[in-house]
Amino acid sequence: LGSLVFVGLGLNSEKSISLLGLEEARSADAVFAESYTSLMPELSIAKLEKLVGKHVNVVRRRDLEEDSGRKILAAASKGRAVFMVPGDPLVATTHVDLRIRAERQGIATQIVHGASVVSAVIGLSGLQNYKFGRSVTIPFSDSESAISTPYNVIAENKKLDLHTLCFLDIREEEKLYMTVREALNLLLSVEGEKRQQVVTRETWAVGVARAGSENPRVKADLVSRLQSFDFGGAPHSLVFPGKLHFMETEALVTLGKAPEGIKELAK
Amino acid sequence: LGSLVFVGLGLNSEKSISLLGLEEARSADAVFAESYTSLMPELSIAKLEKLVGKHVNVVRRRDLEEDSGRKILAAASKGRAVFMVPGDPLVATTHVDLRIRAERQGIATQIVHGASVVSAVIGLSGLQNYKFGRSVTIPFSDSESAISTPYNVIAENKKLDLHTLCFLDIREEEKLYMTVREALNLLLSVEGEKRQQVVTRETWAVGVARAGSENPRVKADLVSRLQSFDFGGAPHSLVFPGKLHFMETEALVTLGKAPEGIKELAK
Repeated sequence: LGSLVFVGLGLNSEKSISLLGLEEARSADAVFAESYTSLMPELSIAKLEKLVGKHVNVVRRRDLEEDSGRKILAAASKGRAVFMVPGDPLVATTHVDLRIRAERQGIATQIVHGASVVSAVIGLSGLQNYKFGRSVTIPFSDSESAISTPYNVIAENKKLDLHTLCFLDIREEEKLYMTVREALNLLLSVEGEKRQQVVTRETWAVGVARAGSENPRVKADLVSRLQSFDFGGAPHSLVFPGKLHFMETEALVTLGKAPEGIKELAK
Repeated sequence: LGSLVFVGLGLNSEKSISLLGLEEARSADAVFAESYTSLMPELSIAKLEKLVGKHVNVVRRRDLEEDSGRKILAAASKGRAVFMVPGDPLVATTHVDLRIRAERQGIATQIVHGASVVSAVIGLSGLQNYKFGRSVTIPFSDSESAISTPYNVIAENKKLDLHTLCFLDIREEEKLYMTVREALNLLLSVEGEKRQQVVTRETWAVGVARAGSENPRVKADLVSRLQSFDFGGAPHSLVFPGKLHFMETEALVTLGKAPEGIKELAK
């Protein structure tokens, strides 16, 4: 039987792939890629094909959901197939199911890891990894209960003095990528209902845009000011800091251009 | 003034670097690297130098701590310096201070992200990213209070039904890399004192060895059985799962060779 290698495309452009990932793709019998689980704004499939030296089959969400990755599994059952995925390929839960099905069919699977927005946002902000509580996605939704989930996670983490990393939803088919401003407005609307002082206009937050690109933007400020801050193009992420260590405060002031007032979070 | 680019080396070997990271190193005026914050078992500095096409200055912990990175900052103040770091370069808090000092001296800094053990372990285990609580390091230490910290974090996360990712300590200078077995023994010794039923011989855990290599090992089982399981060479990591989603249980059974009994965590 064959094998299936999940290769992480990393962040932003095709240049974020690792040497090992590129090697695997070059020597594969069939190469697939998807770009719907995360936005890689400067990714060019044409340039990726040139790097790999062969055709890359672009898989859409519909394809994978409807035929359960049958094409990929078929290629992987008779040869060496590579499936390229943004970020670190199995962090998005979307593809875990495909990996399990491959293994159960006797197809050996392997992962070539790539840079993930999870560690990139932490690194860019200068905040400390071990001080983050659970992370959460803020979904495109009109339903208050859907936005209540991230609101409650931020509240829970704050109680424990922990930071919250918020991924912002994308709807690749409609080219919709949630901005920091939209995410804040959604959370403020829940605050308006619940009034638990979790995300108010006076709450500190950190917006991060285009992690992995040559012009990422990191800005720490009060929610009221972040609402009108120009972060530029997608993708955006958002962090709600809990209690800050001295070095984290320094990082947010120097790297996140935070006003000095943020030092109140270190008390 | 010059610039300082932090380039992630990723996991396991020099082949985990991204195309962009390699490009940056090739065009830099000076290249530095450290390999003491994480173990990359198959990293060869000679092969890395061949890839980069120039001398790579290997920096030891002592160098960076004693002279506060003066050599790197000197090179970065008069040209383009690259500093290569295992994993995603600013996730380990060690180098955030260097980045802040560079920025304050007017040196522009940039990050080329790399694959991190944080996302790799999550992906390898098949567990879901948003169900992890805060992560923690289990330190080499004889002091019960030092081991109490990770013990308490595991307990806290469990109460919230969340998973805990445990990084295992390394002492690069002494070539000491904590194994899953050693980590479990340390936690069991705290359990013996505290008796809070957080890590007993009947607790479920997941060991992950050599993330990013061609032969990673993932094994989910009871602590008593993991204590005698052969994970092979370092580096090792450890996860204590909280409540499991159906798909996570499937992943631990198929990818982590867990016995069926692990399904009790899904209830």
